[in-house]
Amino acid sequence: MADVFANRRLVPGDTIGILGGGQLGRMLALAAAKLGLKCHVFCPDPASPAFDVVAATTVADYEDFTALDRFAAVVDVITYEFENVPGVTAAHLAQRVPVRPGPHGLEVAQDRLTEKTFLAEAGIPVADFVRIDSQDDLVAALPRFGGKGVLKTRRLGYDGKGQPMIRTSADATGAFARLGGVPQILEAFIPFTKEVSVIVARGLDGAVRAYDVAENRHEHHILKTSTVPAAISEAMAAEARRLAETIARLLDYIGVLGVEMFVISDEKGERLLVNEIAPRVHNSGHWTADACQVSQFEQHVRAVAGLPLGAVDRHADVVMENRNGTDAERWREILAEPAATLHLYGKAEIRPGRKMGHVNRLRPMKA
Amino acid sequence: MADVFANRRLVPGDTIGILGGGQLGRMLALAAAKLGLKCHVFCPDPASPAFDVVAATTVADYEDFTALDRFAAVVDVITYEFENVPGVTAAHLAQRVPVRPGPHGLEVAQDRLTEKTFLAEAGIPVADFVRIDSQDDLVAALPRFGGKGVLKTRRLGYDGKGQPMIRTSADATGAFARLGGVPQILEAFIPFTKEVSVIVARGLDGAVRAYDVAENRHEHHILKTSTVPAAISEAMAAEARRLAETIARLLDYIGVLGVEMFVISDEKGERLLVNEIAPRVHNSGHWTADACQVSQFEQHVRAVAGLPLGAVDRHADVVMENRNGTDAERWREILAEPAATLHLYGKAEIRPGRKMGHVNRLRPMKA
Repeated sequence: MADVFANRRLVPGDTIGILGGGQLGRMLALAAAKLGLKCHVFCPDPASPAFDVVAATTVADYEDFTALDRFAAVVDVITYEFENVPGVTAAHLAQRVPVRPGPHGLEVAQDRLTEKTFLAEAGIPVADFVRIDSQDDLVAALPRFGGKGVLKTRRLGYDGKGQPMIRTSADATGAFARLGGVPQILEAFIPFTKEVSVIVARGLDGAVRAYDVAENRHEHHILKTSTVPAAISEAMAAEARRLAETIARLLDYIGVLGVEMFVISDEKGERLLVNEIAPRVHNSGHWTADACQVSQFEQHVRAVAGLPLGAVDRHADVVMENRNGTDAERWREILAEPAATLHLYGKAEIRPGRKMGHVNRLRPMKA
Repeated sequence: MADVFANRRLVPGDTIGILGGGQLGRMLALAAAKLGLKCHVFCPDPASPAFDVVAATTVADYEDFTALDRFAAVVDVITYEFENVPGVTAAHLAQRVPVRPGPHGLEVAQDRLTEKTFLAEAGIPVADFVRIDSQDDLVAALPRFGGKGVLKTRRLGYDGKGQPMIRTSADATGAFARLGGVPQILEAFIPFTKEVSVIVARGLDGAVRAYDVAENRHEHHILKTSTVPAAISEAMAAEARRLAETIARLLDYIGVLGVEMFVISDEKGERLLVNEIAPRVHNSGHWTADACQVSQFEQHVRAVAGLPLGAVDRHADVVMENRNGTDAERWREILAEPAATLHLYGKAEIRPGRKMGHVNRLRPMKA
């Protein structure tokens, strides 16, 4: 069915449907407005931050097919701001209107086993991994990993259990059940030296462009800062972009894709492993809004609307800092900083760890 | 009454009311969203471009006081995107909620005689001018101007009659009546060598910041391009900024103000005359959205919301080109230009001369 819509290009005045009304949807809508496009946001949460900046909204569940049909009837293309759009939802919509990125990227990204298998088969370096469908599978696999590894559910959505590190046989005992007994994956533990990411875009015309590499620092498992350029060699930066571009091409991807990587240093030297792909605009790409002429948000809009991709050149060095939870209260100080640009998401309620906004701090580029 | 609100500062989640729903209101709303502020646009035109990007809208006449009261009750500050807000409207609203910039700047800018008198009394260089209330006044004044000058209505809104150039006694005959018999002003004809403008902002705390000088070119009396930096000396650029800053201070202005100037060259040397002030964000400041970290739109939002002003530094040379009328049809070509950023206003109908969008073309700054 997808072929019917393969070449549909939007014109000014057309409407982009966005599944998800969080800050990413909001920033996508702001970027679409700049290009004269309207947005219609579909989200079950009536207090969605994106609702404040668009012409039309739908409050409904992602599996409310009546609402989805009405939504599909009034938009010209559909995109999404989160990777956990139910597969049935994407498939249903894709029969009615172009869904970009296509359902294939979602399928790959939603299941860690599918994702890692796809990457490994494509020759993209990833950590060793093995499918775990039972406690017996785990016990059998651990020796191959030197007795340790990270156990993860294949799909997200199993709340609060985290990604337990298995170091001892005590850790392993009952671990499959503790993680909910759902399908799992065991990954080799990676003693990385840095986490980096690349934001890559692929257009409807097949053009692929990767932004500069960001170096990411997390706090309490939430992204805290992205620093550009990353403190890695030119050669490694080029390789990181090449890996991201390859993934976008292999997925026949349309839109912006975030690719998270580890830098590891071992007996084979310093090299990259791809950790995860996010089929959407990505927190570690927020720096592009102030350090590039075309942000990741506009780039995604251009791609899904079938417009030419924009330049990915950077005009400044930049550190993006997330303002999570009560960090957001110090917005006035940031507004007074000369080289800082503040972005707030319009969320009414501050909760611990909640992403409330971010700030981009620019510095002249090193020559 | 204004004093009651003099120190009101907005916080994220508060709402800015905007009178006027055109492209300037739209771009103000997009800038407000970036800071986590909501906007409510009041405009009589149900097809207002700004309506597509805000949480709340009112379609009503500017002198519908019931609608104005309802509007004032749900917003935290009111600003406007055009200088012809009726004085009664501004005064009515200012009793209910802070109106920024205040009614004083509007009064000055709405009447060419008041404006020129204000500027001249403040020692700001302007073209010679004289009040014309009758044909006799015109006949009496012309000799002082060497028999020639430009006749203008004091207020805008007298449609289609333009600003006739008086060169001969035939031009003068009946000119007062041809311009509608409304109060007029005769200005000395200025053979300027360049038109330039400065966008200046003044914050609630009294801080004043002027952006770099733009050099403007018009086509058919509509702005076509603004080039930054203007091809004038450093000293003249500093003087232009100083004049704009002085005007903002003298008006006790809160917000962004556009100041249009002529560069003239005569026996006294090369110097500046102030031609017009616009108490709002200005077309000749659209370049700031891509060449500065804080655009004129965000700057205006910061000022009227009582937030600290942002930096006005520029990181690129830039030419802003308006896309008027059918120029707007070539949007796809512009999107494919590497150093161009396109802004479209979401207007459904292209009409001759209608401002449909603009493009900022960046170049590295000359050292």
